[in-house]
Amino acid sequence: MEDTMNEILELFEAKRYKAIREALYQVDVPHMVDMIEELKTQDRVLFFRLIPKDSAAEVFTELSGENQRIIVSAISDPEIQEIMNVLYFDDKIDVLEELPANMVAKILKNTSKSERQLINQFLNYPVDSAGSIMTIEYVALSRDMTVRESLAHIKEVGLTRETIYTCYVISPTKVLEGIVSLRDLVTQELDVRIEDIMQEDVVFVSTWDDQEDVARLFRDYGFMAMPVVDGEHRLTGIVTVDDIIEVIEEESTEDFQIMAAMTPSDTPYLETSFWHLAKNRITWLVILMLTAMITGFIITGFNDVLQASVILVSFIPMLMDTGGNAGNQASTMIIRSIAVGEVEFKDLSKVVAKEFAVGVIVAVGMASVNFLRIYFLTPADLAVNLTVTMTLFITVIFAKLVGSALPLLAYRIKLDPAIMASPLITTIVDALALTLYFVIAKMMLGL
Amino acid sequence: MEDTMNEILELFEAKRYKAIREALYQVDVPHMVDMIEELKTQDRVLFFRLIPKDSAAEVFTELSGENQRIIVSAISDPEIQEIMNVLYFDDKIDVLEELPANMVAKILKNTSKSERQLINQFLNYPVDSAGSIMTIEYVALSRDMTVRESLAHIKEVGLTRETIYTCYVISPTKVLEGIVSLRDLVTQELDVRIEDIMQEDVVFVSTWDDQEDVARLFRDYGFMAMPVVDGEHRLTGIVTVDDIIEVIEEESTEDFQIMAAMTPSDTPYLETSFWHLAKNRITWLVILMLTAMITGFIITGFNDVLQASVILVSFIPMLMDTGGNAGNQASTMIIRSIAVGEVEFKDLSKVVAKEFAVGVIVAVGMASVNFLRIYFLTPADLAVNLTVTMTLFITVIFAKLVGSALPLLAYRIKLDPAIMASPLITTIVDALALTLYFVIAKMMLGL
Repeated sequence: MEDTMNEILELFEAKRYKAIREALYQVDVPHMVDMIEELKTQDRVLFFRLIPKDSAAEVFTELSGENQRIIVSAISDPEIQEIMNVLYFDDKIDVLEELPANMVAKILKNTSKSERQLINQFLNYPVDSAGSIMTIEYVALSRDMTVRESLAHIKEVGLTRETIYTCYVISPTKVLEGIVSLRDLVTQELDVRIEDIMQEDVVFVSTWDDQEDVARLFRDYGFMAMPVVDGEHRLTGIVTVDDIIEVIEEESTEDFQIMAAMTPSDTPYLETSFWHLAKNRITWLVILMLTAMITGFIITGFNDVLQASVILVSFIPMLMDTGGNAGNQASTMIIRSIAVGEVEFKDLSKVVAKEFAVGVIVAVGMASVNFLRIYFLTPADLAVNLTVTMTLFITVIFAKLVGSALPLLAYRIKLDPAIMASPLITTIVDALALTLYFVIAKMMLGL
Repeated sequence: MEDTMNEILELFEAKRYKAIREALYQVDVPHMVDMIEELKTQDRVLFFRLIPKDSAAEVFTELSGENQRIIVSAISDPEIQEIMNVLYFDDKIDVLEELPANMVAKILKNTSKSERQLINQFLNYPVDSAGSIMTIEYVALSRDMTVRESLAHIKEVGLTRETIYTCYVISPTKVLEGIVSLRDLVTQELDVRIEDIMQEDVVFVSTWDDQEDVARLFRDYGFMAMPVVDGEHRLTGIVTVDDIIEVIEEESTEDFQIMAAMTPSDTPYLETSFWHLAKNRITWLVILMLTAMITGFIITGFNDVLQASVILVSFIPMLMDTGGNAGNQASTMIIRSIAVGEVEFKDLSKVVAKEFAVGVIVAVGMASVNFLRIYFLTPADLAVNLTVTMTLFITVIFAKLVGSALPLLAYRIKLDPAIMASPLITTIVDALALTLYFVIAKMMLGL
């Protein structure tokens, strides 16, 4: 595939557009998307126009928001219409969400009033809600149909539905009454009635549920699709597993970013402008820098200790880094366990007890290594060595406790646990480690 | 559901086992799993035995390895056999992988020789390979069958296959020739031949491919299942999307753990012993502690500067934390972008250029805030203020460059980019920040 792709890009350089059009019939959608994203901005529209009609719409939905905007603003109204007409409803909504208002207007100009209303309703679902990722292209059956009638209906509408593998049984007022899998339909006798084989005890989500909770249900149950209902239990759409894979990746990416003290964004890195990246990063950096003033005050407060023994300074970075690392391990473990649903607030005492045990074991090991390396490798005397070693010991245990408890407390008060990650934990642990260090030093050095 | 669950747990306390058995008919598998995991260890086997026969096997596969071991070692051979018989092949392999060798032997005792051979073959696929997550329960068709014959075949075997929604067309020697979706089968005329509707250009993976790469293909293509072939392009199994969701979560968890300087483990937190947790954490903590010695030597080397101006010490924690945070942001961004396939080594120059721009913007902002807060809030004189501010400025930019370049370089030499995360980056940035700080201090303070 790599070869074909390079060949096509060479043909593009040589402006052999007809040959490209031929060659692209052999290329699948993800590779066409890759090729467009490798091209210079000004070449992308031209290349997009060379893509076979059958694949163009699908390629379009897979492009990044930036590239969709480039293409929509360059191609003609009928061309846009052609793409929009073949898109599944949820992909259409995704595209419209990425475009600025004037382009949305341009696209919606030619749709029917009822479709426009429906689209506007979907555009109003909160970002990250089940409503915002659902599609309306499902197979609806009614309870008095037979398997034969159902299969005939699927044969008729099947190609325009996003999934036909789970069918939804609804009442005349669209209330969700049950589900039937295509597996059941093709393995049952033809005269059986839907109401006799449908599963009535259906797991569903509601339009306003958070997509993260929806993803958790998919994981727990191993579903391919899940119905979405409104307040009156009417079926408003379905969520399919392919969209859930994206949700799971997005939510992890968001956690990674928050845990590294950034404002989360789901725009791919290479397409985010450096201004935007800087904006997402500077807020937390400044906040953390200012809270680090506290450590400065602590040090100033113990100026006399430092004056008396400057060698103490040389161990500050090691103590800070080790405390930060120990806390980071605990908080990462707990934040991730909360995210995948393995740990809840009610486990707080269990978690803290466990981290205390872990902390003691790790602290004993590290304090021993540290004592020996100072003893043999640095010019510090025994009192200094013991000061450093004792501080290290207590700091490691404290870091484990803070690192594990804070994410759970954040979760309890409905904050995102991911905030309680390395950067914030480090700042807290630093303050304690330094205070402890100087207090112990005062005692040990008899100041 | 919460109510029902609490009620059942109360019935359990009251030893009303018959009532529980009744009540459990209303409970779905994920909730039964939750209940078992809430019980005390000694109660789990008893509770498991109360679960309706229809659900027992499914509940069993969803339990953690530890709980599976508890149950297998307590129940009788016929009971084990009953569970194993209804499991899908991939679930059976998952269970066997979790059990110690003597229990595996106990289970395999009563299986046929051919199945035992197959199971042994599967147990030998490397952990995290496509082979280790695939199943053999797929629907196989041959190219000369008609749609009618195919549907009849599916009707017959459908209930014992993990998915029937994609069917695999194979030659008499099991070479993969194409795929047909059930959607195509139910929307086509009955007399059409499979070879006329099958898709021959099939995306497949090979048995030894890494599960992370398989997951990426699922995401790019939106598949429900993907065929796995051996070196001779013979179909050895299929991977289904529900297993891929687990793979994606596992791989993210692994990255979180590596990035926080831990040896990764996929055992749930609450079930990992504190000894094991301590073991996973101490190695990197000790390595990082020892490398932090370098910063100690740097400080000792500039002892004269510190003697001359002890106030410099009070800014060390802030400079170190800020450098670490700035580097952490960049490395997290790049490690995650590599993991989801958005950034590759060939983007190195683009990435570094972008991070340089981000670094300059962020550094200007932070240096300004820092200058003002020292000027107005601390007793340091202008020379010290400028020393701190200049060090901060350069450190932030350097941290962004190191944080973004190292994960890409690690990726290039086939190391896991996640190693180049906060802990290691912090150690490197610390060493630079301190050296820079003292060199600038020497100049500014005329030492």
